[in-house]
Amino acid sequence: MTRPDIHLVLDFLNTPTPREWVDAACDHIEELLIDHANCEKKAASTALALMYRYVDQPDLLRSMSKLAREELRHFEQVLDVMDEQGVSYRHLSPSRYAQNLHQLVRKQEPERLVDQLILGAVVEARSCERFQQLTTVLPATVADLYRQLQNSEARHFRSYLELAQQISRNRLGDDQVDERVGCFLVRDAELVTAPDAQFRFHSGVPG
Amino acid sequence: MTRPDIHLVLDFLNTPTPREWVDAACDHIEELLIDHANCEKKAASTALALMYRYVDQPDLLRSMSKLAREELRHFEQVLDVMDEQGVSYRHLSPSRYAQNLHQLVRKQEPERLVDQLILGAVVEARSCERFQQLTTVLPATVADLYRQLQNSEARHFRSYLELAQQISRNRLGDDQVDERVGCFLVRDAELVTAPDAQFRFHSGVPG
Repeated sequence: MTRPDIHLVLDFLNTPTPREWVDAACDHIEELLIDHANCEKKAASTALALMYRYVDQPDLLRSMSKLAREELRHFEQVLDVMDEQGVSYRHLSPSRYAQNLHQLVRKQEPERLVDQLILGAVVEARSCERFQQLTTVLPATVADLYRQLQNSEARHFRSYLELAQQISRNRLGDDQVDERVGCFLVRDAELVTAPDAQFRFHSGVPG
Repeated sequence: MTRPDIHLVLDFLNTPTPREWVDAACDHIEELLIDHANCEKKAASTALALMYRYVDQPDLLRSMSKLAREELRHFEQVLDVMDEQGVSYRHLSPSRYAQNLHQLVRKQEPERLVDQLILGAVVEARSCERFQQLTTVLPATVADLYRQLQNSEARHFRSYLELAQQISRNRLGDDQVDERVGCFLVRDAELVTAPDAQFRFHSGVPG
């Protein structure tokens, strides 16, 4: 993954993360790291859930299994940084972000699968963008990890989007992906720019 | 993992897999491989479930995350062998084995965690033993993979058992692990020696 690829990811989103969220991250490193660890676990279990449901799609199975392995490796790297920062892992409620995006997923197949893959692409793109912003403000140990992770997120973004396009072409006979991507990006932009009482990795404007 | 370690695993079990199951495996390679792929996914998601519940236990989190990554890698290797053998992945109901062992898990903590870890150790030990038996009867491509996997299963067996012992000592103040292991091994032996209408990776005597 070269730097121009990251810029492709950033261009994909409708709006950058508001500056207020980035500034608040420095005062919420504990919540940031714990919720980030939770997000890596969630990314792995979401990939596994697709592997349970769509056993007849070999490309999807291989791609999701590799992706889940990478997310778990990131989880372990976040644990290391938490240790270094003296942060103890505790239960933390998830942000509204993923659940809210999930409401857009259509119920019937194959639309459901296409939407889930688009959702994956949008979450990876937003994560990549937040990692890049965070590298400029966080302590060096955390920033170093986040610099590495933004490349992985950009790769995962591309895998999810390519799978969505491929399945849409093969199963729906046309490419509806751009229109659906547009819906998810509008919701993503709403969620990251609206006020949010909780601070989390994917939360909105603090306060 | 050296060969004597595998013998430790085999000695751990109360009874070897009946010869009838091993012979039947050659006539059920399709079910064997599909169910094996399912077992690798299940092993990864079981490890993830422990990672969701027990966030306050760093050793467990790291150990389970690494184990889940390895199970996912095995899943991909089984997919490769399925391709080579011309086996298409389809939905297949699970065997009675894991669900039946799970009935032994106690409800209160920390006994529940200790029992889940013992269950993990017993499943890995039985899988290791079946891989070893299968290497003597299956086609070379499958046997080659199973020869590799028996070493991993032996390592996972040891990790699960050591975690169970460690948590039992720290949280229960004594080592009740041997007694509980005994209960799970009795049930395991019953399940693999009793007649079973289904052929699966962990099924009983065919017929």
